[in-house]
Amino acid sequence: MILTLAGGVGAARMLAGLMLVVPHDELTAIVNVGDDLELHGLRISPDLDTVTYTLAGAINPDTGWGLVDESWQARAMLEQYGGVSWFGLGDRDLGTHLYRTHRLGQGADLAQVTAEITRAWGLDVRLIPVTCDRLRTMVTLAEDDAVHPESPDAPALPAGSEISFQEYFVQRHHGVPVSAVRFDGAEDTTPTPGVLEAIASARTIVVAPSNPLVSIAPLMAVPGVADAVAARREQVVAVSPIVAGAALKGPADRLMLELGHEPSVVGVARRYREFASTLIIDEADAALATAVEAEGMRCVVAPTIMSSPDRSAALARVVLEVDR
Amino acid sequence: MILTLAGGVGAARMLAGLMLVVPHDELTAIVNVGDDLELHGLRISPDLDTVTYTLAGAINPDTGWGLVDESWQARAMLEQYGGVSWFGLGDRDLGTHLYRTHRLGQGADLAQVTAEITRAWGLDVRLIPVTCDRLRTMVTLAEDDAVHPESPDAPALPAGSEISFQEYFVQRHHGVPVSAVRFDGAEDTTPTPGVLEAIASARTIVVAPSNPLVSIAPLMAVPGVADAVAARREQVVAVSPIVAGAALKGPADRLMLELGHEPSVVGVARRYREFASTLIIDEADAALATAVEAEGMRCVVAPTIMSSPDRSAALARVVLEVDR
Repeated sequence: MILTLAGGVGAARMLAGLMLVVPHDELTAIVNVGDDLELHGLRISPDLDTVTYTLAGAINPDTGWGLVDESWQARAMLEQYGGVSWFGLGDRDLGTHLYRTHRLGQGADLAQVTAEITRAWGLDVRLIPVTCDRLRTMVTLAEDDAVHPESPDAPALPAGSEISFQEYFVQRHHGVPVSAVRFDGAEDTTPTPGVLEAIASARTIVVAPSNPLVSIAPLMAVPGVADAVAARREQVVAVSPIVAGAALKGPADRLMLELGHEPSVVGVARRYREFASTLIIDEADAALATAVEAEGMRCVVAPTIMSSPDRSAALARVVLEVDR
Repeated sequence: MILTLAGGVGAARMLAGLMLVVPHDELTAIVNVGDDLELHGLRISPDLDTVTYTLAGAINPDTGWGLVDESWQARAMLEQYGGVSWFGLGDRDLGTHLYRTHRLGQGADLAQVTAEITRAWGLDVRLIPVTCDRLRTMVTLAEDDAVHPESPDAPALPAGSEISFQEYFVQRHHGVPVSAVRFDGAEDTTPTPGVLEAIASARTIVVAPSNPLVSIAPLMAVPGVADAVAARREQVVAVSPIVAGAALKGPADRLMLELGHEPSVVGVARRYREFASTLIIDEADAALATAVEAEGMRCVVAPTIMSSPDRSAALARVVLEVDR
């Protein structure tokens, strides 16, 4: 079994690539839930949904999140009421949140609901939320943040304010410097049943090219997960989400810098070397391979930019060959 | 000020008629909340929404509930998941429920949220939920209810089962006989601030042609309301929702019969005579005017079927003339 540690978009593309080269029922992903939120009474799991929709071929290709063929009637009404509309809830996407919220209200846990949702999309890949307990990634602002013209519903906040990940990422367009990241509630969570077993038994563990600080780190913050992954270090292959000093998507590079890490494949290696034995870096960073190896990791240079299914599949093959 | 005691569709049409003949800022309605429900984590107030959408000219003309120009993408997704989809939540309508749920979650009360929603629709009429506390109309089944082909998600239930109003009305298409109606939580509610004052100061109190047992009765079950209305009996004018022994819409006639009331304008008079001095009955029931008066009410015969705005306005004029 090939196990992927997954955030959102980058992980979804990595998994889509793996699906092209590995039988689907041999694929499992442990997915971040630190980005989850409650909004309008609904429970929203953005990373689980991004992975699900992508693997189902139903992701909105224009945005990289949400569903294709989406409409926005509910949001238009919310805007008419002057309600909170910064988090983009499409009408089809709302169906997912309504279903999830209803089932959780009936006493199902997030793992069960996720299995139901992925089954309804016809997916054979197993997606497991890292925990069914409450875990919330919180971000502390390094500077005062005034009201932005592009996000008028975000109140001005002083430096030192702590906000949820989605308030940082979506509402404030990850446009404000950050001084700390914290995984609220992590110490009280337990891994979803099956998570530690999957880590212990996987043939290869892939750390997807997701944000090390806000996608992979919350997975590791669930008690028992980091130790279990570290115990399989020889089988752990990470793909750098940083290419030529920049994140392909999102604020990973800036977050690395703001939180005292080098925003490069070397900085990624320093974050991952305790639990991963191999780092795959992009050809653009080939000159840094020696520096990565100096951090104690094997380094594989390959094209890592998954701009097409073919490229995702090629990267998946590289990942799987590392361990052979 | 003209005060209307209101359920859903019949009350909405009555109020739309009153709007054509009375300055809007002189109109107030106290609206039933016994039909409210929580579904998928959302708080839904069907009567408030039906009245709001109707007065805003945005009601779906085909159904009498929900919004015009509606789409059903969220519901289609819910159905894909095998989720609960018996309560018709259109995409636009969902915007209302999302807004309401969010504001209630922020600590606003239902009256405040209702004022915000009606203002957003440009309404000058004041709609007040009879209480901001939890009040739920519950219905006891008189007979075993098997699974209906047209509502496969409704479980079979034995006689004596108590279900919520919407499970009876929408999920089971009000197709099963009823042995009792109960207003769960009513004794612990208080009237919304302004309700008793409005009753005390209204020039005329109109009991809209709503279901006496499940629309008007829950209003009266809020402690203090029935006494306050009875104290204004001379100013209270009721419009019969029963015409020629039948309800124009919904199960009022069957409920009257099943719960031991005569399903006629005379039965309505017996329900209302304690707190209303006048009953307006349809021309089809003219022969029963004497029987109504024998119950101790003045009886006015008029066309009561509000099949057009003109007819609604004409009925409104009749209502207002009673008191002159």
